[in-house]
Amino acid sequence: MAETQKTSADIGIVGLGVMGANLGLNIAENGFTVVAYDRDSSKGSHLTNMAQEQLSDPSKINAYNDITQFIIALKKPRTILMLVPAGAPVDAVIHDFAPHLEAGDIMIDGGNSFFKDTNRRVEELAKKNIHFMGMGVSGGESGARHGPSLMPGGDRTAWEHAKPILEAAAAKADGEPCVGWLGRGAAGHYVKMVHNGIEYGLMELITESYDIMHRGLGLNLEELHKVYKEWTKGPMGGFLMEITADVLVQKDPLGDGYILPKILDTAHQKGTGLWTSEESLTLQAPTPVIDAAVTQRVLSSTKDQRLQASQKLAGPKSSISFNGDKTAFIAELGNALYGAMMLTYAQGIHLLQVANKAYDYGLVLETVAAVWREGCIIRSQLLKDLRNVYRNSPDLINPILDTNYSAKIVNTQENIRKVITTATPWGLPIPGFTSALSYYDTYRSAQLPANLLQAQRDYFGAHTFERVDQEGTFHIQWSTTE
Amino acid sequence: MAETQKTSADIGIVGLGVMGANLGLNIAENGFTVVAYDRDSSKGSHLTNMAQEQLSDPSKINAYNDITQFIIALKKPRTILMLVPAGAPVDAVIHDFAPHLEAGDIMIDGGNSFFKDTNRRVEELAKKNIHFMGMGVSGGESGARHGPSLMPGGDRTAWEHAKPILEAAAAKADGEPCVGWLGRGAAGHYVKMVHNGIEYGLMELITESYDIMHRGLGLNLEELHKVYKEWTKGPMGGFLMEITADVLVQKDPLGDGYILPKILDTAHQKGTGLWTSEESLTLQAPTPVIDAAVTQRVLSSTKDQRLQASQKLAGPKSSISFNGDKTAFIAELGNALYGAMMLTYAQGIHLLQVANKAYDYGLVLETVAAVWREGCIIRSQLLKDLRNVYRNSPDLINPILDTNYSAKIVNTQENIRKVITTATPWGLPIPGFTSALSYYDTYRSAQLPANLLQAQRDYFGAHTFERVDQEGTFHIQWSTTE
Repeated sequence: MAETQKTSADIGIVGLGVMGANLGLNIAENGFTVVAYDRDSSKGSHLTNMAQEQLSDPSKINAYNDITQFIIALKKPRTILMLVPAGAPVDAVIHDFAPHLEAGDIMIDGGNSFFKDTNRRVEELAKKNIHFMGMGVSGGESGARHGPSLMPGGDRTAWEHAKPILEAAAAKADGEPCVGWLGRGAAGHYVKMVHNGIEYGLMELITESYDIMHRGLGLNLEELHKVYKEWTKGPMGGFLMEITADVLVQKDPLGDGYILPKILDTAHQKGTGLWTSEESLTLQAPTPVIDAAVTQRVLSSTKDQRLQASQKLAGPKSSISFNGDKTAFIAELGNALYGAMMLTYAQGIHLLQVANKAYDYGLVLETVAAVWREGCIIRSQLLKDLRNVYRNSPDLINPILDTNYSAKIVNTQENIRKVITTATPWGLPIPGFTSALSYYDTYRSAQLPANLLQAQRDYFGAHTFERVDQEGTFHIQWSTTE
Repeated sequence: MAETQKTSADIGIVGLGVMGANLGLNIAENGFTVVAYDRDSSKGSHLTNMAQEQLSDPSKINAYNDITQFIIALKKPRTILMLVPAGAPVDAVIHDFAPHLEAGDIMIDGGNSFFKDTNRRVEELAKKNIHFMGMGVSGGESGARHGPSLMPGGDRTAWEHAKPILEAAAAKADGEPCVGWLGRGAAGHYVKMVHNGIEYGLMELITESYDIMHRGLGLNLEELHKVYKEWTKGPMGGFLMEITADVLVQKDPLGDGYILPKILDTAHQKGTGLWTSEESLTLQAPTPVIDAAVTQRVLSSTKDQRLQASQKLAGPKSSISFNGDKTAFIAELGNALYGAMMLTYAQGIHLLQVANKAYDYGLVLETVAAVWREGCIIRSQLLKDLRNVYRNSPDLINPILDTNYSAKIVNTQENIRKVITTATPWGLPIPGFTSALSYYDTYRSAQLPANLLQAQRDYFGAHTFERVDQEGTFHIQWSTTE
């Protein structure tokens, strides 16, 4: 039943979970008309109720659980934004909706889809002249409602058409919307994957800094809260630092005291960090801090094995003690965290630059940094530095080769060393900090001991080696001593 | 032209590179008749010459570069062992030879094939009733000639038939041949992949120990040679330690002095270590030392970037100095290396146990450890310990949970800490040692700071968390402070 007044919606949203519902409200609040679909009609009703409560003009959103009605309500060319779980659900929505669409219509996948799936979908739908765009959406529930960071890529026609809506909905940084067409094919989802990989790395580093101050220095939760609150004001301030400060003093709604000690220490993951590590292997663009973060989540999840191991694997003989100046050490730890965070962003950006060449995305790193400044999980003061780096040197393979960016890391390297030499004898696992420093120390080494490794490889496998004094490859008949 | 006398060969070898030629000589020397094929006839001639020089009965080997002649010369059921590069060449050989074979014939792939390719080939050839076996071969040129470690898996009928030949050719440990049917499908190549992953990890650790003594303590090559020679006699003694000792004092055939300083410090790789890291991600069985080894090879290979970075990224302010007892510290370093090596083997074995369940290989870990005792690159005293662990506890998920194995690691943990706190201020990259210790410290932690991480995830993504005091999953409306 198509009523005239309802054929004018600017955008359709499919999937009314937390992200879909809140993005719908956000877009409607910005003056666009939205139709929404979920096969579960209770979700549509819930959204309509939310619109009644939150919007000055609730008629801007209409929800259906009938595909035909939903399609009829859309202005042509139709723009459909999917927010459904990655994988089979995305293909199911395409399967169900594409037959109702016409050449020139637009589908946008706003989920955390695996980039190879997005490549396939862009190509498949292009054959039907449907413009498909994979778009990373970051910022969680609150970001979706009040301004997420949006990372669209794929079909440029789709971008041009959807641009006014996406710019209105996106977070703003210095007045600029945190959205921009990132590149061809799966560029948007690739950038979102790396965003999440960086997020894993930063969270691991923050968690280690917390462990060092909590188990190491013996700070209580209020004291820890004050430290992180202070750090939000510094050069590494940003969303993750802010929520860390909040989390530490969040009350337990089910009992007395704070919630944090009541939370089980087994981390979960949904795959995007792991994909980043896999890609860093495939493209040989190392992301060791992210790899360490993935490893730590996996190890934390095998709590039964850890409990067994804790009975067999002894820690340091002497118990943890700290006799120095706590305040001074915490300041050093903050610098170390800052430097390690800079190195983590650098690893992610380096992977993006390598992927850009490998997959011909046409990424502009300055845009990536600009889009990440607000709205997303990894937003921080550091993104301004990164944006400057790539405004000046668009092709720089790794931001640690930039003079200004590297100078800031250099200022922290002794602090990272201090953190490692302090926490290692305490028996606290700090693979994020050590991976960050190893990366730094390896990168800055004009000379590495890899010559020994090449000699070993030639010894047992005749794999040959290069020489420092002559061109070519060489092989030796190695001889046994004694 | 089939002559009667030549239709009796026990095995055919396809691919007469270093590995194929030497395995052929090895098998012939052990009393079996061998026919050999290479499409490059000069390789066949070269093998015939080597047979003349090295074998008491050179007629045991005949080389052809005609497929029909090669096939006719083989006893039925025919057994063909391929030693060609992984990937397309293996499929090309199957394509060229399979049409000449009959039901019941046997093909064995002795290259470093990717295990997923082997799965496919086992299935494809089973349809033609050709028994296909993927077999890891380790030991390099010398191992192939005088006794490699052989890791066959796949079709069990093939194994039963080829067993006498493979047992004769394999290395012997305490009189037992270092070969055994490892399991179904791609089990053999999977085990070989993990073998190589462990090899990467051990080589990284040895390289770091060398760097610490060379750049750190200032030992010269003769002094270093003595240290490693001594270490070959200890509990971590084995092939890699032996060749390290040899490499250090190998003379440069093209000039004066030792070769090592003339070798370029850019490591190469052929993929098996990287595959191991990928698998550890896919199966969520962390191998952080192997991951670090892969990362270091990649970073070492980008020498141009390192040279740039060395101009921008400063090292520690104070130069390297060591005022302690060098001999005592080297002994500590040796213990640390031993413990870190034990942890590296443990990571590889853990991955194998997880893969065994995931892929239903039917692996017997005791057999894996037995096969690795001699002939292969990672052979060391430690394999005896590992064999004992899995003789007693075949299903143990990780050897570090074994009382005896873990006790030896525990004895080294303070030494690993000492190595890290010494080398970190020197600015030497030691990701192998730090990854090993982080793994140890994480595994032994009944309590980890992952509760903070779960709180952050619930804060921004409503990902829920578990509690220590109640069953179920929980979500909080987190609130902002101040």
